[in-house]
Amino acid sequence: MNILITNDDGIYADGIIELARKLSSMANIYVVAPKSERSATGHSITIHSPIMVEEVNLGENIKAYAISGTPADCVKIGIEALFKDINIDLVISGINKGSNLGTDVIYSGTVSAAMEGLILNKPSIAVSYNDFKVKREIYKEVSEYVITLIENLKNKLDLLNDCILNVNIPNVKVKGWKVTKLGERKYENVLEERTSPFGQTYFWIGGSIKELEQNKDSDITCVNEGYISITPVSIEMTNLNKFEKLKSMEMLK
Amino acid sequence: MNILITNDDGIYADGIIELARKLSSMANIYVVAPKSERSATGHSITIHSPIMVEEVNLGENIKAYAISGTPADCVKIGIEALFKDINIDLVISGINKGSNLGTDVIYSGTVSAAMEGLILNKPSIAVSYNDFKVKREIYKEVSEYVITLIENLKNKLDLLNDCILNVNIPNVKVKGWKVTKLGERKYENVLEERTSPFGQTYFWIGGSIKELEQNKDSDITCVNEGYISITPVSIEMTNLNKFEKLKSMEMLK
Repeated sequence: MNILITNDDGIYADGIIELARKLSSMANIYVVAPKSERSATGHSITIHSPIMVEEVNLGENIKAYAISGTPADCVKIGIEALFKDINIDLVISGINKGSNLGTDVIYSGTVSAAMEGLILNKPSIAVSYNDFKVKREIYKEVSEYVITLIENLKNKLDLLNDCILNVNIPNVKVKGWKVTKLGERKYENVLEERTSPFGQTYFWIGGSIKELEQNKDSDITCVNEGYISITPVSIEMTNLNKFEKLKSMEMLK
Repeated sequence: MNILITNDDGIYADGIIELARKLSSMANIYVVAPKSERSATGHSITIHSPIMVEEVNLGENIKAYAISGTPADCVKIGIEALFKDINIDLVISGINKGSNLGTDVIYSGTVSAAMEGLILNKPSIAVSYNDFKVKREIYKEVSEYVITLIENLKNKLDLLNDCILNVNIPNVKVKGWKVTKLGERKYENVLEERTSPFGQTYFWIGGSIKELEQNKDSDITCVNEGYISITPVSIEMTNLNKFEKLKSMEMLK
């Protein structure tokens, strides 16, 4: 099996290094990841500047490149250029430091990298761990869950022909696995106005998670309850219900 | 009516200036746009650095700010900070220089800005013009279509409670309006390997549009045929079909 791994925390993040090393026992591992952290970049791609590429040593049996681009760039360059002669069977983005749940996925570089894999017709999975501050050792344990998932999926990868899997692993004792739907996540007190030493106005996006009532099967509830959440996330974004409703508008007849 | 306008071509792009001036005859106009071009930024937000804000003069009856952030940042800062005391009725992102059709929407800063409006519970519309090189005068004419659309929609804005409208205007004589679905757009020869004067490897993402067979009601076909395309684009990304299928997997029972 040939697995392309990327992330948005950067190629020297613990999560990607431990995942790559652990998976190298079961597959050929190809890594293309951003040289530095590129979180919250959404599905940004780099078209206005060149993308620099540099080979990196992440361990035995791992072929790895750091690039100056975004997570989505990594997957594009991995599949269409650096490893274009390899038949990549699976794209994995992660293991991300911090969860990517509910509305987060739209901002997430981790999830967008998996989406780019799907656009390029590869089965793709985003994996996040629900904790921002953890010891490197933790990612060794967390990677075991990724191996279990791959073992169970590897004969069913055609399930991922029109969706990616967004996987979130809780930072407590894992009770099991659940298939979920994206919940609703919003933030409060996001913007604070400040003044620079030179008198210029600026904002810094921050904020804390707002507690919202979740729908049934929400990925947010699932992880809070100690289960690993697996959400199939689609790239088909047309709203078919509103498609019909809009067609009945007078101007559009 | 209070309209917040943004774009991804930057605040001094012809498309946003002509749109803001034209719409100022029918509504109070509030503009927050990137200081320079931020196309293909997807739903990127700026969380690792401050976002500088500067007031800009775009004409009478227009309150405008240029910021150092992305299109999604513009909408967040517009609604939650700079104009938080104004009841914004509608968010418009555009008029973009170049179309945003089919798979493009996932990379588009223009569309992502409208999505951010929807996340913040505002009816939101992305507008693109299907030409990269046009005279400024053209945007005056194109803005008339936006006015027509707003006039027709303004009593039905609750239609936009779970989707944005992605509007693409053809660069030929307009035959009419059509409600469409996102088509499939892929590019070929996207990556070329080059070497810098210092011997470093780099890539530059480019490529040309691949001609693909389009599904019925495709936005791509619609614009090619000379109609204005209106696609309702959803933020609900869970793949419900695969949700059911995955639940039947042995490991997940």
